[in-house]
Amino acid sequence: MNQLTNLSPVDQLAQHEQEAKDLTRILPASKKVYIQGSRPDIQVPMREIELTDTPTGLGGEKNPPIMVYDTSGVYTDPNVQIDLNKGLPNVRETWIAEREDTERLDTLTSAFGQERLKDIRTAEIRFAHIQKPRRAKTGKNVSQMHYAKQGIITPEMEYIAIRENQRQREGVDMRQHAGQNFGARNLMEITPEFVRKEVAEGRAIIPANINHPECEPMIIGRNFLVKINANIGNSALGSSIDEEVSKMTWATRWGADTIMDLSTGKNIHETREWIIRNSPVPIGTVPIYQALEKVDGVAEDLTWEIFKDTLIEQAEQGVDYFTIHAGVLLRYVPMTANRLTGIVSRGGSIMAQWCLAHHEENFLYTHFDEICEIMKAYDVSFSLGDGLRPGCIQDANDEAQFSELRTLGELTHRAWKHDVQVMIEGPGHVPMHMVKENMDLQLEVCQEAPFYTLGPLTTDIAPGYDHITSAIGAAMIGWYGTAMLCYVTPKEHLGLPNKKDVKDGIITYKIAAHAADLAKGHPGAQVRDNALSKARFEFRWEDQFNLSLDPDTARSMHDETMPKEAHKSAHFCSMCGPKFCSMKITQNVRDYAQNQQNAEHSINNESVIEDGLKTMKTVYQEHGQKLYHKV
Amino acid sequence: MNQLTNLSPVDQLAQHEQEAKDLTRILPASKKVYIQGSRPDIQVPMREIELTDTPTGLGGEKNPPIMVYDTSGVYTDPNVQIDLNKGLPNVRETWIAEREDTERLDTLTSAFGQERLKDIRTAEIRFAHIQKPRRAKTGKNVSQMHYAKQGIITPEMEYIAIRENQRQREGVDMRQHAGQNFGARNLMEITPEFVRKEVAEGRAIIPANINHPECEPMIIGRNFLVKINANIGNSALGSSIDEEVSKMTWATRWGADTIMDLSTGKNIHETREWIIRNSPVPIGTVPIYQALEKVDGVAEDLTWEIFKDTLIEQAEQGVDYFTIHAGVLLRYVPMTANRLTGIVSRGGSIMAQWCLAHHEENFLYTHFDEICEIMKAYDVSFSLGDGLRPGCIQDANDEAQFSELRTLGELTHRAWKHDVQVMIEGPGHVPMHMVKENMDLQLEVCQEAPFYTLGPLTTDIAPGYDHITSAIGAAMIGWYGTAMLCYVTPKEHLGLPNKKDVKDGIITYKIAAHAADLAKGHPGAQVRDNALSKARFEFRWEDQFNLSLDPDTARSMHDETMPKEAHKSAHFCSMCGPKFCSMKITQNVRDYAQNQQNAEHSINNESVIEDGLKTMKTVYQEHGQKLYHKV
Repeated sequence: MNQLTNLSPVDQLAQHEQEAKDLTRILPASKKVYIQGSRPDIQVPMREIELTDTPTGLGGEKNPPIMVYDTSGVYTDPNVQIDLNKGLPNVRETWIAEREDTERLDTLTSAFGQERLKDIRTAEIRFAHIQKPRRAKTGKNVSQMHYAKQGIITPEMEYIAIRENQRQREGVDMRQHAGQNFGARNLMEITPEFVRKEVAEGRAIIPANINHPECEPMIIGRNFLVKINANIGNSALGSSIDEEVSKMTWATRWGADTIMDLSTGKNIHETREWIIRNSPVPIGTVPIYQALEKVDGVAEDLTWEIFKDTLIEQAEQGVDYFTIHAGVLLRYVPMTANRLTGIVSRGGSIMAQWCLAHHEENFLYTHFDEICEIMKAYDVSFSLGDGLRPGCIQDANDEAQFSELRTLGELTHRAWKHDVQVMIEGPGHVPMHMVKENMDLQLEVCQEAPFYTLGPLTTDIAPGYDHITSAIGAAMIGWYGTAMLCYVTPKEHLGLPNKKDVKDGIITYKIAAHAADLAKGHPGAQVRDNALSKARFEFRWEDQFNLSLDPDTARSMHDETMPKEAHKSAHFCSMCGPKFCSMKITQNVRDYAQNQQNAEHSINNESVIEDGLKTMKTVYQEHGQKLYHKV
Repeated sequence: MNQLTNLSPVDQLAQHEQEAKDLTRILPASKKVYIQGSRPDIQVPMREIELTDTPTGLGGEKNPPIMVYDTSGVYTDPNVQIDLNKGLPNVRETWIAEREDTERLDTLTSAFGQERLKDIRTAEIRFAHIQKPRRAKTGKNVSQMHYAKQGIITPEMEYIAIRENQRQREGVDMRQHAGQNFGARNLMEITPEFVRKEVAEGRAIIPANINHPECEPMIIGRNFLVKINANIGNSALGSSIDEEVSKMTWATRWGADTIMDLSTGKNIHETREWIIRNSPVPIGTVPIYQALEKVDGVAEDLTWEIFKDTLIEQAEQGVDYFTIHAGVLLRYVPMTANRLTGIVSRGGSIMAQWCLAHHEENFLYTHFDEICEIMKAYDVSFSLGDGLRPGCIQDANDEAQFSELRTLGELTHRAWKHDVQVMIEGPGHVPMHMVKENMDLQLEVCQEAPFYTLGPLTTDIAPGYDHITSAIGAAMIGWYGTAMLCYVTPKEHLGLPNKKDVKDGIITYKIAAHAADLAKGHPGAQVRDNALSKARFEFRWEDQFNLSLDPDTARSMHDETMPKEAHKSAHFCSMCGPKFCSMKITQNVRDYAQNQQNAEHSINNESVIEDGLKTMKTVYQEHGQKLYHKV
């Protein structure tokens, strides 16, 4: 694990040329396109995947390109010169400025932020182009929810409407199953007004701190595409700033919709600055982690003042959502005493320890309204933490967990009174048959505020594979109505994820989220499945790779068995070989059946088929009975 | 891909010493134990995992060893000398012989088998110790179902009852959630009589060909532990006998309950012999694949005679179950014409092509009773193939698929008339919300005959990760009542699985099957989860690794972050580091709460807690407020 060096993160990154390439080259057969909104500065990025034509033997038609949601930012735009030292272009700067409800401060408000600015020991690793922070003018509320409630459709909202529709071309196969959405509202087209209404009514949030103008607007809510979050962050045990920045870029490249920086080690403040300035997606944090560092890891030394300064410090850097464990109430702590694994949430256990040490109520709960005042001055969204989530199957859905969830429901309403955006964190470890109970209770007590769950893991017996034990629960709870799924990597419970673990976790969670969109019947969700399946059926191997969530892996696995280029256009599957392939056989059957004049009517009429078959037999023999063609 | 050499599979295997070691060393901290039944020759294997004591600081109690179901056969028994040339010991030989309803034939009945015996070209690769085959005496039926129906409890049934109970020691934490089993019958203890009744009534099968006495009896049924199957087999494109034998051993080592040999390439007959003689688990095949080879891959040249000879050839080698696509009826074929991916089952497409070419009904359907006569003479079980299963999300649950399923229900009853055991194959590609409909219809039309599904995959967009897209569907359908899950490897749709792919597929499916057992509330299913979670909570790292499905991977991932031996007993998690760990904090909270005299009563009474807290504050401060201890 390489420790922090004196090289700037950029220089360090530059050392790994291949890595830099991996981070910026566009995925195969893809091009970055921008859809313009009602004004020229609304440019919504998408990835367009070019497809080849169907082979002449199979009809030879053109296959229109497929548009997919793109979280990778300008890193995959060949027309943009990436400079991590300067950070990303400011997508939202003008929109924020023209609302005229914010002001630029001369200096950082937080004492700690000030102190770090002056600290010479961290000079070389400090981000060079720190802008002066924005804050709402006195008495103003700059949250997207506040605008939404006054009926204002912000550019962010319009941007999101375009983005969620993933515009598809003429001729794309839009067929899909109706789905079962448990009361979600699926529109055939997402309009800016629909986005506004969902945000106004608290069913969706737009995490978009006014100090993170680099962020490409996105939305989290049960009536939109299911999103995924990737956790990164260094710890006392290792990882350096450049590693974290490249993990972030790597994560968004593969589809992370938001990133949580869970750093607990050295230089948390500087690491966060680098990440936010270079992140095209919303960044979330757990401020209590840093606050704990400030009191040298002694929970009982935490104070509201230290925590408040940390909130402001991070809000002025541009953190888009805060995990805050305000639901860990004093009276709930003893409920965990007989658990098999007690309290496993770091934030939850810190607050529990604080409560017990002081025999006082959780200061995050008692100061909740003051926290809301800070949040709305920067538009930071709440992610109300589930500090008492179960840490094993046995502890699932117990009194401690559900008591806290009811309190999170109460806090949701208090935040909404301040027009502050809220999502709710969920478990954890839950066996399949107990997953839905979590969703149902959350929808009830939090009035459809977005649910944001960690998995849940459906068994405890597979450390090393918890991306899979949890993807099962994640796909199910996503189907039931969870808006965002926090990924779990193979290293969960074992160690710090490296880049391979991060990618494995993300692809696994893209699968879970997409399986949920399909099951909910989200409009257009099946387009990519249909296109890939058609390519598979027509042996268009390259298209099959290029349409997949991970083209590199799909291609390399295929090459292991059939390395030759010729095989990329082989009319057989590698499983069966040239002599024996069901796809090939199926095409014969299909050509045959399609040639039947009366296939449609005869389906339920055997005698008619019999006749049809007799007359067609010769035709069939003419166009070749062989099951295989030599390559 | 290494081609077949002149070396015997054993010599080839010997070339890879490390591989041989991997295949035979017992898993860490484990020992092979045998539970004796009512007679000394009923010796049921299990794996006993030794655990360390709880650290003194946390109570110091002994943790009893955990018993787990063991499919690895004598390969992991240090007291048995493995000789692949001779094959495995004959567990069932006496039981079969003493029933006196079978006879040894002087020679192979099948013409093809005869021919291969004489073929000098394959002399060096032929298994040396081929026994003369057994067959039922004229007029006898040797199926386990036949015995069960007469009220006979066979040694196989008693063996299975002991095996399914996974006997647990005193002091094991047996707590678990009630589960939701959709009408399955969970017994607290599985009795031999219960096994008999389930087999007699067709709800479970015991795949146990009288010519596969090496097989350790196991059962497939919704009221038993959910099982998994691993597919192996060579193809025209590569893989040799030794590779397939070691894949089989490798697969059973990691938990494959049955193996399907899907070879379609060279020397299918010889490969199968080597696999069966050395397999401790039931072997399944798809006889139509070999029959097709015999007619040089031209489906329309297939005849009932060639197929019949193939069935007998394989039955006399000891194949335990046959996939037979007798439900692909002529009138169903046109129903696939408008599918996005037509017919993707190899067996299904072969039969469809045969039907269309001859405009005659599927000969597997018209000769079904003769097939039953062969099956019952050797006790081969049916795995009625779903030749019209969907090949993509769009084609899920369509008319072709469900029409065939209804025909499989009809065939189930015909097989039962012959006292032949039956399971039913299921899809395939199905979005989550349409999975249950498959299970419900199967239970209805097949009267609870065991369902055996391939996944299903819940999305088509992740080639390279289809073990995961399918594990989601597999876990769900297993919960709903599927008895066995056919694994899918990461190479599905792309290439031939290597040993890493096989292991990835198996561990992923052990997860799905176990998650299903937990959700069904199968008795004792949660024991291993509880033990592992307790080890995790107490920082007993070694126990955590040893209790996991894949101890090697868990350990190596942990070592990546914390290589030192000392860390194996570190009282902190690698994610947080020594300074900051929720588990550590939780213990403080837990000790504290447990010391509260009145924790129980005060849970819902804040004022009482307040008092308790005040009095306890000093106590708490005595036993140390620090969140961390130096290592």
